[in-house]
Amino acid sequence: MATAVHLPATLSREAALALDAADPLADFVGAFALPEGVIYLNGNSLGPSPQAALDRLEQSAREEWSRGLVTSWNKAGWFQLPYQIGDRIAGLIGAAPGEVVMTDGVSLNLYRMVAAALALRPDRRVIVMEGSNFPTDNYVVQGLIGTLGRGHEIRFAEKDEIAGAIDADVAAVVLTQVHYKSSHILDMAGITAQAQAAGALAVWDLCHSAGAIPIDLNGCNVDFAVGCTYKYLNGGPGSPGFQFAATRHQATMAQPLTGWWGHAAPFAFDRDYAAAPGIGRMLTGTQPILSMVAAEAGIDLAASAGIARARAKSLALGSLFQDLVQARLGDAGFALASPADADARGGHIAFDHPQGYPIMKALISRGVIGDFRAPTTMRFGFSPLYLRFADIWDAVDVLADVIETGLWRDPQFAAVDAVT
Amino acid sequence: MATAVHLPATLSREAALALDAADPLADFVGAFALPEGVIYLNGNSLGPSPQAALDRLEQSAREEWSRGLVTSWNKAGWFQLPYQIGDRIAGLIGAAPGEVVMTDGVSLNLYRMVAAALALRPDRRVIVMEGSNFPTDNYVVQGLIGTLGRGHEIRFAEKDEIAGAIDADVAAVVLTQVHYKSSHILDMAGITAQAQAAGALAVWDLCHSAGAIPIDLNGCNVDFAVGCTYKYLNGGPGSPGFQFAATRHQATMAQPLTGWWGHAAPFAFDRDYAAAPGIGRMLTGTQPILSMVAAEAGIDLAASAGIARARAKSLALGSLFQDLVQARLGDAGFALASPADADARGGHIAFDHPQGYPIMKALISRGVIGDFRAPTTMRFGFSPLYLRFADIWDAVDVLADVIETGLWRDPQFAAVDAVT
Repeated sequence: MATAVHLPATLSREAALALDAADPLADFVGAFALPEGVIYLNGNSLGPSPQAALDRLEQSAREEWSRGLVTSWNKAGWFQLPYQIGDRIAGLIGAAPGEVVMTDGVSLNLYRMVAAALALRPDRRVIVMEGSNFPTDNYVVQGLIGTLGRGHEIRFAEKDEIAGAIDADVAAVVLTQVHYKSSHILDMAGITAQAQAAGALAVWDLCHSAGAIPIDLNGCNVDFAVGCTYKYLNGGPGSPGFQFAATRHQATMAQPLTGWWGHAAPFAFDRDYAAAPGIGRMLTGTQPILSMVAAEAGIDLAASAGIARARAKSLALGSLFQDLVQARLGDAGFALASPADADARGGHIAFDHPQGYPIMKALISRGVIGDFRAPTTMRFGFSPLYLRFADIWDAVDVLADVIETGLWRDPQFAAVDAVT
Repeated sequence: MATAVHLPATLSREAALALDAADPLADFVGAFALPEGVIYLNGNSLGPSPQAALDRLEQSAREEWSRGLVTSWNKAGWFQLPYQIGDRIAGLIGAAPGEVVMTDGVSLNLYRMVAAALALRPDRRVIVMEGSNFPTDNYVVQGLIGTLGRGHEIRFAEKDEIAGAIDADVAAVVLTQVHYKSSHILDMAGITAQAQAAGALAVWDLCHSAGAIPIDLNGCNVDFAVGCTYKYLNGGPGSPGFQFAATRHQATMAQPLTGWWGHAAPFAFDRDYAAAPGIGRMLTGTQPILSMVAAEAGIDLAASAGIARARAKSLALGSLFQDLVQARLGDAGFALASPADADARGGHIAFDHPQGYPIMKALISRGVIGDFRAPTTMRFGFSPLYLRFADIWDAVDVLADVIETGLWRDPQFAAVDAVT
């Protein structure tokens, strides 16, 4: 670490340690199995492993699967996991019990939710989406409308264009609450209200917001939503996603991906499909149980911490990072690529830098893990449950060292392969 | 165990032990972590855990996730798993490398494959299916054709009616090779040839055949196929399924469930979808890695054993069971509900018995695990890698005891809940 740093006292390492000492979430750090020597600023991509997730996974594999065998579908409650974990997620996103199931992945879940929304607006053909956001949502809707073959079209609109894009032709707005790159937050309440006033439905993707910021789906009167659990909910690599359908739609909503887990009587093995009541009809087939059980612990930790406290700490971590970068690297070419107003961004902060790629590679080689999105964007995630304020101070100290020593110029960091 | 059993010498327990002593697959038994005191005849539903699967899962969770964190997507090869494991499965089902990917679940995979088939026959509207088979396939196709809204219909045909159901209106036959209940095998080569002669495509579901019987997809000129890995491939509860598309279709096949994992350049984050070349386009989103890595070991074991040897042993196990039931319980009301010709059935054998439900419950209470399908069918699976001939002898011995002592009449076994 750099030995002599002249900073205001509020930006000293001692000040960071004092923040840690006063942190009401400090004890959560010990709940995660992070390796020594790593400062993990990429929980916006893949969260680290809760110790309880590792233990639960091992118990599920070595007891439920190995000893319980097929009887565990009932005795270990595997069949109920989509509902059971769904209800826990509901508590984190402002949904009611019975409005959320955990299942499959976000892309598949979005296919269902958008199909359900379009079926509720059969006379409308336009879907409003933010084209610059994480594009799998675009791909899903493009595939869906191609499959439908009824002349639907996507009206792409960037953040400030969305309001102007909503008119009487719009069947649904399909938007990601927190932008995967810039981290800007869209106005869920306002856009949902505007969409509904125009007769459209609102479908929200919570991938970068669940576990990161307060979400109030029912308070915003959202129609449908999806999200993932492997980012801020620390559910494990590719852990199943979730889907939300407001209670008011559940009796009539269409489901394109019908399968036996969504049947009204799955063990009757009836020849023909009959939809289960409620959110259950939005299930399709057998779920990946081991990935699912591993995801429970992270969701429980998020619930236990409380989203208000988590958000407050995430904002404080991000602001400290931003202030330290400004103070120590203000002339090093880092340009904020996220909203300057901390309240207007999610759990990560993006900076553009012309040498963002080799700088990030060099940072990672020193144990500070963020990520990079072409052409020039470095992303740093401020997940609140396992990061200490001192970690933030140390991360910027390493970043300063990488810049000041010119480590990033080392040829090993120039090769353009995937950063993480 | 019953102490005095008068049987032909060929049906003695000593004869069973002699078969075990001569079994070329005997060493595979030790590769599975089965509990003491259990004879597991339900691998046709959920296979038991290979010891290597448990170890690999733990290594993936505690090393790749916990220590490698987000870098494991590349460094641990997570992104490549659908292709890597797909190629291993290809070797078990008569497919070529690059024709199979492991992903999602069977129902979702079938949606893709049937959608692709229907898109290749845009002027035809009929899908032939065996209505009595495991009905999630019906549900998937019903959901798909409802979503398409173009007047497709399913023509349900039972085994002996299929040939007569294929005509010039048929876009695709969508059939399960081994029947989930009766275990009868459909004639993949003959039906595929007939379908193609009529201008239709053949889509096969291999859920009850992969790992159980020899399959030669390319030898049969199959167009598309799906299957699961948690039955005879012992991949773990809800382990991801697989999908096969013949090379000749890959350049033009449609994919309804487009997502970023099937994009030609997933890390370009382009706004619009562009299909990946080859089977890769049939992927959608991020996969449940922990469930996926756990499934590798079972697939490797199946490949290592060789399907010919596995099938031969499975047939021998099943025949021994059948002979013992006949010899010891010939007048106890068990009626074979599978083809009498062993070559005409898959890896399990079904028996109907008016008291099948309480008998199966009593059997399970004694450590012999099969399952039950209403109204009267008991299923016994003869997975070859972890069952010994002596296990089969002991299982029938317990069954005989359950019948002879009237244990099944105990009120604890009468309650009609799920058997397993």
